[in-house]
Amino acid sequence: MKRFRPLPLERAFTLLESGPVVLVTTNDGKHSNVMTISWTMVLDFSPRFAITTGAWSHSYTALRKTKECVLAIPTADLIDTVVGVGTCSGTDTDKFATFMLTPAKAKHVQAPLIQECWANIECKVVDIIRKHNIVVLEAIAAWVDDERKDKRTLHAVGDGTFIVDGRRISRKRMMRAKLPFC
Amino acid sequence: MKRFRPLPLERAFTLLESGPVVLVTTNDGKHSNVMTISWTMVLDFSPRFAITTGAWSHSYTALRKTKECVLAIPTADLIDTVVGVGTCSGTDTDKFATFMLTPAKAKHVQAPLIQECWANIECKVVDIIRKHNIVVLEAIAAWVDDERKDKRTLHAVGDGTFIVDGRRISRKRMMRAKLPFC
Repeated sequence: MKRFRPLPLERAFTLLESGPVVLVTTNDGKHSNVMTISWTMVLDFSPRFAITTGAWSHSYTALRKTKECVLAIPTADLIDTVVGVGTCSGTDTDKFATFMLTPAKAKHVQAPLIQECWANIECKVVDIIRKHNIVVLEAIAAWVDDERKDKRTLHAVGDGTFIVDGRRISRKRMMRAKLPFC
Repeated sequence: MKRFRPLPLERAFTLLESGPVVLVTTNDGKHSNVMTISWTMVLDFSPRFAITTGAWSHSYTALRKTKECVLAIPTADLIDTVVGVGTCSGTDTDKFATFMLTPAKAKHVQAPLIQECWANIECKVVDIIRKHNIVVLEAIAAWVDDERKDKRTLHAVGDGTFIVDGRRISRKRMMRAKLPFC
């Protein structure tokens, strides 16, 4: 099994801020499930995140009941897994088996990490704003795979196309005052 | 002045779903202001969006008072504008003048469009969830600049670096059933 390195929690928001497609895992006590979402938002450096989901998703029942999940961040080579997971339902599909995803034991939650993903964030549900289908999460542990060389992620456009991370530009010097944790 | 083409509202979410850095304009009745944010989320195809902001931002007062804003989406060549706008405050800076941004008249809101941006979305504030600093927006018009050839956007990582859009992969055929509007 691949070893993940713990990422300091105050840096966990840097895994999500760029808006990558995310796989969300849950475990209802019997089965693990996974869904694809790109509707996520950083809420705070604490770090807190929001995701948009609701009763239309099979994962939502486990999310509400267990108040736990893992946000797993796939790289671009997993595009067909991301699309496959996003176009079938846990009601009739064991998605971990179907898409050959390897669940790994998380430290604080029953929902599994995904071995094939470059980063995993263990989260507790801290609030559900039903009126807007917003679930507020607090990260309690974050893990990254340092052995993975290509960490380019995917960004869904929403029209069936996906943008792969391109070049990276640094403005660290200009932004120093705004970056307390980096 | 550059002409923007109206984008059908049901496609407006495709401007934000990939997670680009966004410039948010407001107008308090006297002055226009602009802020940089990357904490945004699609909430619905209607289209509704969430942004994270609060009293720490000078724009928040105008946003609360007028219940209007424009989400303007800059391309990668505007990186120094994005960082500049994000590292000073409207309390003491006329950011449109300082960063040579050209305000253009919106159709439904007092907040200006930004000529230099490749897309602009006119929005109404429909809810503010103070507990989590979430502002819920509904798009009422969307505009794109078809003359702009390079539409690559920026994705903030949160550590002072920015990812530029890379190549685009299509999975339209696999996703057809999930794409009612595209």
